[in-house]
Amino acid sequence: MPGERMALGVDLGATNARVAVVDASGRVRAARRARLGEDRSPEAVTEQVAGLVGPCLDELGLGQDALAGVGVGAAAQVRGASGVIALAPNLGWREVPFGALLAARLGRPVRVLNDLDAIAWGEVRHGAARGLRDVLVVFCGTGIGGGLVLGGRLHSGAGGVAGEIGHVKVRGSDGALCGCGGRGCVEAYLGGKNLSDWLRAVAPGWPALAEVCGGDLSGLHPGCVETLAQRGEARACALWAERGGMLGEVLANAVTLLNPSALVLGGTVLAGAPGLRQEVERVLRARVLAVSGEGLQLLSAALGDDAGLVGAAAHVLEER
Amino acid sequence: MPGERMALGVDLGATNARVAVVDASGRVRAARRARLGEDRSPEAVTEQVAGLVGPCLDELGLGQDALAGVGVGAAAQVRGASGVIALAPNLGWREVPFGALLAARLGRPVRVLNDLDAIAWGEVRHGAARGLRDVLVVFCGTGIGGGLVLGGRLHSGAGGVAGEIGHVKVRGSDGALCGCGGRGCVEAYLGGKNLSDWLRAVAPGWPALAEVCGGDLSGLHPGCVETLAQRGEARACALWAERGGMLGEVLANAVTLLNPSALVLGGTVLAGAPGLRQEVERVLRARVLAVSGEGLQLLSAALGDDAGLVGAAAHVLEER
Repeated sequence: MPGERMALGVDLGATNARVAVVDASGRVRAARRARLGEDRSPEAVTEQVAGLVGPCLDELGLGQDALAGVGVGAAAQVRGASGVIALAPNLGWREVPFGALLAARLGRPVRVLNDLDAIAWGEVRHGAARGLRDVLVVFCGTGIGGGLVLGGRLHSGAGGVAGEIGHVKVRGSDGALCGCGGRGCVEAYLGGKNLSDWLRAVAPGWPALAEVCGGDLSGLHPGCVETLAQRGEARACALWAERGGMLGEVLANAVTLLNPSALVLGGTVLAGAPGLRQEVERVLRARVLAVSGEGLQLLSAALGDDAGLVGAAAHVLEER
Repeated sequence: MPGERMALGVDLGATNARVAVVDASGRVRAARRARLGEDRSPEAVTEQVAGLVGPCLDELGLGQDALAGVGVGAAAQVRGASGVIALAPNLGWREVPFGALLAARLGRPVRVLNDLDAIAWGEVRHGAARGLRDVLVVFCGTGIGGGLVLGGRLHSGAGGVAGEIGHVKVRGSDGALCGCGGRGCVEAYLGGKNLSDWLRAVAPGWPALAEVCGGDLSGLHPGCVETLAQRGEARACALWAERGGMLGEVLANAVTLLNPSALVLGGTVLAGAPGLRQEVERVLRARVLAVSGEGLQLLSAALGDDAGLVGAAAHVLEER
């Protein structure tokens, strides 16, 4: 182990922080997690994250200088290489130089990535799409987001916000209102939060759905629809055809535009609803320009919750 | 001039070939054009293209060795770096090693690009988007196509067919039939050929349109609608709102996904219809995710017919 190249990966979410020492093969060697405290100021969060590092290193018998650097994947809009978090709505941060704060505290170089970028890099370097150069990664969980690896490099966009596939429109300006303020975004129809809200609203008029959650509407989630669809319940099947078709069209258009060699799908909504995913794939295959979808591999995210950590660390280790 | 780095640019279209000696600043120093002969075999076309090179070099008093290399922009599907044209429908070519044929004939290294990729590179290196690193280039002419420069590099995709934005869907599987065999592609509604065909079909029931082309329906083209729209004719204005809105949505979604710093628009349909373009831009601005469109520059293609030649030559000169 001495002399082996390792990096620290940090997953900075809305409510939790997780850090891990990751080796060059993408293995998590030691990890710690903490719930963010009441004080979400940049200084307090920096301190809290830094506090998780020592125990990881101690567990491995390593000093701080064993780390080639620190990679952060943050649920935030990140300004390119600068390490500045332009906006992290859940933390209430605007224009926070988190990279510099953490680097000063840890004495190691820090690189900050958007969480979906970190996940995409993780899946391409050590996960489902290992070794591929042109990969679209799409997660459908609470929200819908994506990461792009093109020509073997992460494409973060001019403003650091590429990959916002959840806000691609599937309906016109009279469509459903999305959290982004726009209308007709695919996330407004299929993001886990929006879909669950909508299910709770329609459940009183959909007895089978109310029944499947045992009458507790507050616990309704997309998996309840999947249960019904697996039983062949007509309304559930129709809903999956409609909503799955929306994401299928969005993915077909993205593949037509980008011609990737693989599409990696992940996130709780898709993972918990194979019937929905089947509809997504069916429409994707039916609607993509034939030549653009030729040879496209449809893959499932393989790294689970570690993807962001591993990706952020890998990005630091392979910095070019 | 001696010692100056120059390359040959070749624009291989459906009916014409054009070659030019291009210098490192993107200037066309000498150019020749020819209509392709009856014999469209790869060997005959290679011979015809090669025959245009000598006169260009003679005009400049240069020998073949003055050329660093040859860049071809072809109306074709190209297999990455290999120089193989996988499919050129208008030439009837399949799996033609055109790069190798031309290299053998000219004794210079040859690189073959898709025509829209060559145009995109030209506009980014020497045209409207000079010096920018993340640029989406979209041409709406006979068909609709695009080229992507991301992170300062041409993104051609895993199969060499990235940028097929004309085949992004704006209507469902009951939409208009496109030349690609799919339904609902934006090109089916706004590509110059399809739009003109549709105009000829509806003109008998649209007196103002029939009138504006002097009763000669065969000469109907999108510019006729523009003429009416400029006069405020209701049906023409509605058509531009509908069709412009379609392309506007497609561009908004592409910008949401890719977060480029600039979008370069070109092609005869848009160039000849400022009213249409205005609708495109209005809907693009209204429907793009705010943060993805922040700072987006909307530019007009600047190199005209030279873009492909200049781009292909520039790509050779800057080979990395």
